[in-house]
Amino acid sequence: MKKQFVLCGTFLHTPVFGAVEFLEKGYMLIQDGKVGALLPKLKEEWKDLPFVDRSGRLIIPAYADMHLHAVQYVNRGLGYDKGLLEWLEAYTFPEERRFLEQDYADKVFRDLAEELWQGGSLFSCHYSNAALSTTARLFEMIKASGLCAFVGKTNMDSNGGCMTEESETSLRETGKFLSFGNDKVKPILTPRFAPSCTPRLMKELGEIAEEHDLPVQTHINETRPEIAWVKELFPEVKDYLDVYERFGLIRKDKTILAHAIYNTPDEILRMKEQRVLLAHCPASNSNIASGIMRVKELKEKGLSIGLGSDISGGDALFMNRAMEDALKVSKLLAAVENNEGHILSEIEALYLATKGGQEFFGEKGTFEPGANFHALVIDDSRHTKYRPLTPVERLQKWIYLGGPHLITERYLNGELLVFEKAREAYRNNPATYTLDEVERELGLV
Amino acid sequence: MKKQFVLCGTFLHTPVFGAVEFLEKGYMLIQDGKVGALLPKLKEEWKDLPFVDRSGRLIIPAYADMHLHAVQYVNRGLGYDKGLLEWLEAYTFPEERRFLEQDYADKVFRDLAEELWQGGSLFSCHYSNAALSTTARLFEMIKASGLCAFVGKTNMDSNGGCMTEESETSLRETGKFLSFGNDKVKPILTPRFAPSCTPRLMKELGEIAEEHDLPVQTHINETRPEIAWVKELFPEVKDYLDVYERFGLIRKDKTILAHAIYNTPDEILRMKEQRVLLAHCPASNSNIASGIMRVKELKEKGLSIGLGSDISGGDALFMNRAMEDALKVSKLLAAVENNEGHILSEIEALYLATKGGQEFFGEKGTFEPGANFHALVIDDSRHTKYRPLTPVERLQKWIYLGGPHLITERYLNGELLVFEKAREAYRNNPATYTLDEVERELGLV
Repeated sequence: MKKQFVLCGTFLHTPVFGAVEFLEKGYMLIQDGKVGALLPKLKEEWKDLPFVDRSGRLIIPAYADMHLHAVQYVNRGLGYDKGLLEWLEAYTFPEERRFLEQDYADKVFRDLAEELWQGGSLFSCHYSNAALSTTARLFEMIKASGLCAFVGKTNMDSNGGCMTEESETSLRETGKFLSFGNDKVKPILTPRFAPSCTPRLMKELGEIAEEHDLPVQTHINETRPEIAWVKELFPEVKDYLDVYERFGLIRKDKTILAHAIYNTPDEILRMKEQRVLLAHCPASNSNIASGIMRVKELKEKGLSIGLGSDISGGDALFMNRAMEDALKVSKLLAAVENNEGHILSEIEALYLATKGGQEFFGEKGTFEPGANFHALVIDDSRHTKYRPLTPVERLQKWIYLGGPHLITERYLNGELLVFEKAREAYRNNPATYTLDEVERELGLV
Repeated sequence: MKKQFVLCGTFLHTPVFGAVEFLEKGYMLIQDGKVGALLPKLKEEWKDLPFVDRSGRLIIPAYADMHLHAVQYVNRGLGYDKGLLEWLEAYTFPEERRFLEQDYADKVFRDLAEELWQGGSLFSCHYSNAALSTTARLFEMIKASGLCAFVGKTNMDSNGGCMTEESETSLRETGKFLSFGNDKVKPILTPRFAPSCTPRLMKELGEIAEEHDLPVQTHINETRPEIAWVKELFPEVKDYLDVYERFGLIRKDKTILAHAIYNTPDEILRMKEQRVLLAHCPASNSNIASGIMRVKELKEKGLSIGLGSDISGGDALFMNRAMEDALKVSKLLAAVENNEGHILSEIEALYLATKGGQEFFGEKGTFEPGANFHALVIDDSRHTKYRPLTPVERLQKWIYLGGPHLITERYLNGELLVFEKAREAYRNNPATYTLDEVERELGLV
């Protein structure tokens, strides 16, 4: 017998970049974790099914944070007054070292997972530090949270400050962390970026990727000085992307490249051919004075793009802030170049934050029939209390003014996603949260 | 007998643009609302005074929001996908009309005042709509809140859509609203911007300003099309500033000009001579794709600058967001022009948000002896729980990650500032707030 229920609310999703679909009062049949149907009326044959009435609430697909450094969670907001190198030496590497203490790692990763959950980032892609022990704890904490994620031990046998590894160790430990995953939390190869990896390391990582058919994540074309440095370090390559290509680290449909601000036309063509996912990290690109990604141009050229918080280059984990920053920087690019063609809309930003990233996880990222139901239920009544708003206006307000505290429920594969600490919070603050009620309705308790 | 008490905490302020002073554990004597002294130890002779122990909390000067449209509070976040003209017609002017209903005006202005209070913007400069009745309600609600403010009925007898006034009416009602003020909430002449005022109206407003020695606020050099429009409308002027100068609307030490993105070198010189206060509104400048103010250059040239939320061109009322946006856009300007000289630091952003604006109110905006004590007490323990941070690092975290809910007390002229609705909130949630306790300590209840 199928596990099924009907959910009622204002459904809004973005099936195509630039398009939006919504039902102001929609009834969705959810069967075995998947969207069965979404209709403007309750069907006669659904009337005996469990019914979760969230009319008046906004329901959107769950967020995917496609680039974040889990070990930099504590550093958010710190040291942006330093230059990049000084910042790495004074903040980034020493912080990564602190995770060698397991208690510290457990505490921070638990808080990180909770905040991802709170903000609705049910999918995320993590850089750990270079240590196997830390990476093991990150896997454990994300697994315990019930979130879906890719997690990578970073490889850096060069220019990694106090965290630089031996190439041998890096490879041996990479072999080990590949076994840490489960069905929701999976390993991803994570050479930090070209300057922090020797050719030998990248070559062998490429072979491991091929052998185990692994996904890969790394950085590219983030700042002008970085590109010049790559050219110095690898004088024989034609461009930054070429470094990764030579070592088999650009894997078709399985590669995330973060930033991608200063791409050559030829790099763009090759990224498209390899169906790379670009992770746009606007907050980080601002904080580090990197520049502005040309999102609309890249989308017009057929590239896949998701959004990343990139903590702690980025200051905020919550994806609404990433959407807001993506919107704002697109408009500044338009102002600087006097070309309105660069301007992103809120529905395009939502696409990037949901479907854009979820696809890398093999998900639809929408509410189309057959899609796994991953969604956020939002109580935005404070935004509509003065006068009624259209669903798209509600999305706009949600992006700019919303916060994690307005997300009342998070669904992953059609089930409410909760975890230990959240459960406590629910119990302590039943006025704000509605978990028990919903769980009862769904027969989960 | 003097009313005095001692406050203990981490005091941090910015006496000069670019400089910061702090005392990690400081003891401040507050006498009759003014800073008496700030010392690293409790003086023997202070030991019998009421003592408010906020050790571990961060204490900074109160914020000043130097540019906001009170009647656009509800529109925050809405319609940024429209072009400027379409946005004004579809959102701005119709919203300003809604305030002709007094109930709507009272409800919105009360919420606005509460949110200003929550966010620590104890000083603010408001544009009402063009209606006398609305402006009267705005004065009343701000007075009731206890906040300090300048409030202006906007003048627009041209290009104001459904809110365009007759010149006669505009002048007559301006005469009336000038009597609405008290010692904390004062009138400010508010010709909306050059294109919305006829020469006749501006001329007479200039005369009123002169006669009553009034401050003036308006917009300047916000977008390129606007500047071209001004040139068309006033073909005889040499630049945008010249329009206002001709009509006596640039008043020495008493003028706020919002935006000021595209200034000519000569305008900059004249703004400096007239000691104009520029209101930098980075969120709005991004949302409307206006451009990026050249803050560091203007500061180097000796201009006075404060920060404005500019709702609803800006999406957020909370000044931390304005600081964050100011920081981010300064870095994007640096990236675009490949010139690090444009980069603002967090302490410079704090200066803009506090002293930069407070000075227009005749305040010091610092904790120097003799300054009126206007301050925010912040519980940032969640930012320091993983490891200790320096006071400047705490400021950084506060700017990027803080929220109004972390402000535990607001002092204006040395007294706790509370108002009716806040009082209720305190009562309902004593775990979060500490009002009663503090009030008892200070003998206020």
